[in-house]
Amino acid sequence: MSTSVSAVNVASVRDRLARARAAADSAGVDALLITPGSDLNYLLGVAGDSYERLTCFVLPAGDAPPAFVVPKLEAPGYAGLPTDELGVRMATWVDGENPYALVAKLAGARGRVAISDFMPALHVLGLRDELSTVDQTLAGPVLRELRMRKDAEEIDALREAGAAIDRVHARMAEWLKPGRTEAEVGADIAEAIVAEGHATVEFVVVGAGPNGASPHHDVSERVIEAGDVVVVDIGGRTARGYNSDSTRTYAVGTPRDPDVAATYEVLRAAQAAAVAAVRPEVNASTVDGAAREIIADAGFGEYFIHRTGHGIGLDVHEEPYIMAGNDLRLEPGMAFSVEPGIYLPGRWGARIEDIVVVTEDGVEPLNSRPHELVVLPA
Amino acid sequence: MSTSVSAVNVASVRDRLARARAAADSAGVDALLITPGSDLNYLLGVAGDSYERLTCFVLPAGDAPPAFVVPKLEAPGYAGLPTDELGVRMATWVDGENPYALVAKLAGARGRVAISDFMPALHVLGLRDELSTVDQTLAGPVLRELRMRKDAEEIDALREAGAAIDRVHARMAEWLKPGRTEAEVGADIAEAIVAEGHATVEFVVVGAGPNGASPHHDVSERVIEAGDVVVVDIGGRTARGYNSDSTRTYAVGTPRDPDVAATYEVLRAAQAAAVAAVRPEVNASTVDGAAREIIADAGFGEYFIHRTGHGIGLDVHEEPYIMAGNDLRLEPGMAFSVEPGIYLPGRWGARIEDIVVVTEDGVEPLNSRPHELVVLPA
Repeated sequence: MSTSVSAVNVASVRDRLARARAAADSAGVDALLITPGSDLNYLLGVAGDSYERLTCFVLPAGDAPPAFVVPKLEAPGYAGLPTDELGVRMATWVDGENPYALVAKLAGARGRVAISDFMPALHVLGLRDELSTVDQTLAGPVLRELRMRKDAEEIDALREAGAAIDRVHARMAEWLKPGRTEAEVGADIAEAIVAEGHATVEFVVVGAGPNGASPHHDVSERVIEAGDVVVVDIGGRTARGYNSDSTRTYAVGTPRDPDVAATYEVLRAAQAAAVAAVRPEVNASTVDGAAREIIADAGFGEYFIHRTGHGIGLDVHEEPYIMAGNDLRLEPGMAFSVEPGIYLPGRWGARIEDIVVVTEDGVEPLNSRPHELVVLPA
Repeated sequence: MSTSVSAVNVASVRDRLARARAAADSAGVDALLITPGSDLNYLLGVAGDSYERLTCFVLPAGDAPPAFVVPKLEAPGYAGLPTDELGVRMATWVDGENPYALVAKLAGARGRVAISDFMPALHVLGLRDELSTVDQTLAGPVLRELRMRKDAEEIDALREAGAAIDRVHARMAEWLKPGRTEAEVGADIAEAIVAEGHATVEFVVVGAGPNGASPHHDVSERVIEAGDVVVVDIGGRTARGYNSDSTRTYAVGTPRDPDVAATYEVLRAAQAAAVAAVRPEVNASTVDGAAREIIADAGFGEYFIHRTGHGIGLDVHEEPYIMAGNDLRLEPGMAFSVEPGIYLPGRWGARIEDIVVVTEDGVEPLNSRPHELVVLPA
């Protein structure tokens, strides 16, 4: 799906390649070996396809030219890549040849290579056998410094993804009704995620009643009942490769549990406080603390069982992580979720999640659906 | 999202676990270490989610109990897994603990472990560092013998996926029209793939005119014109985890190139001959040869530039591969694509693809849309 090269911005790709080489050099790495996925998309503007045949971008730390190793069969999919302008050499291989030997030659590595965090073991071991005297380390730590600071183009892509998922939440009353299963509702939502402007569905969580108390629940055969509180956490990836991720909590008719309104209000205040805490120079842990303090003060501290947020971009989860202990100082261009939750085991759960971007002097939320508990007709 | 455990068939999972242990033992492997994905789905009936936190099923070759290592936060998603009945021990870990040490302890491996082919490098290196004296090999070759022989339940799931993708092809006239771009048509198809019964969109190829001559093209901004021949190769994964994959070639109005009808007829005959060659005891290479011979005899041999097919199941591409040199003897329950193509560079391409299953005495095709060139209104 992702080999189409629609609009590679040559200047920004060039800039990213230069910065990645410099970062590799500082990290004492001879070459970055990047297989299809978000790192490749970041560096070359194409995500590539990952099947059993090796596709690997070889970016040496020094002056040697970068090379893109691609199965010959898949090479036409990269015809739109401006390799000449980027100074990238294409190197194709056919079934029967050893692509790992080709990568080894192009990498010219003697000491250490950094491989994509999500490179499949199939290729990790293939490269290990071919480069048996070379140490393998992860490329994630090298590239994370670059990727977590988004440029204007990336923020625009995230804004578009945010608007698309907001349109799906806006239609929730069409699907979320008593008598339907979570799975049925989830299937409708999945269809709408694509219809409203995503290329793929990344996840659909519909947690009704007690299922809402499990943060990573997805969908089940549970039939939604009048009075249920329902957590709906959904996201997709747009054609530009960027992800959406937004959670709202709904009530199907008046909530059965009389505690819902007051508890939800604690959560709403916590989420708003965390968003308000976001600005340059503030630590990631401070944003987490802003939400956590309000929830703990109200007596629900033990029921907020995860970090407050995660970075988002070409991956659904990436740096920076908004959690206790992370003293990373926020900078303009960082994008992440702010999603505190309260989970009452056996009863119900609630979570509110917006993606936000750090601006020059504060914060821009990329989701704009109401933060109040949305009561749908029962 | 795949952590929902809808309907694990305890008897079949038990049987698969026993056979996988035996296969590991024969392969000289101390334990299989399986991260989320199709191998996990095959062995435990849950695909799991793969983010940055380690989830890993540990299946020792000997008598030690299997264990499922899961981040505590994600454990509720596996609550439906009948671990007691399966004799699987749950082992959770929380942020700050070392999950690789936990896996190492549970695996009890001294010589060699086999890891999922698609285990992310992140975890491959984490396990390597923790089990530094233990050799890592791939689990794919161990599990492939099991996975390529589908049971009745799996074939039923593939049948359902085939019917779903057939319904999408049946609606092609709604979308494939002159004046629209491949990308616009592709977006509509993606939406329909979900609407017609898949949980996810796996790929959408719309190759109009010269783009059809590139087998791995996906979609582009090319505007479809009257007279274009268009290759449409599409697939998705159903809620049961099984994939569809079907290609049909369309003409938008009367084909511009007068050679289309005769060339397409060669392809149709080749595809039919390959399907007719499928039965138990026949070699995979024979099926490939049946298609290739007809295409070569008609003078198009050099334009059929890929293998005839690939296995399909929980993965879109898996064993058996239907190609020259593969002397694997087909057995009942094997499922794969039969998809010859003819690709005329700079002009157009055509491909016809059905998924078929080997039966006790022949073949069952799982796609039933017409094999003729479908001429849509221009």
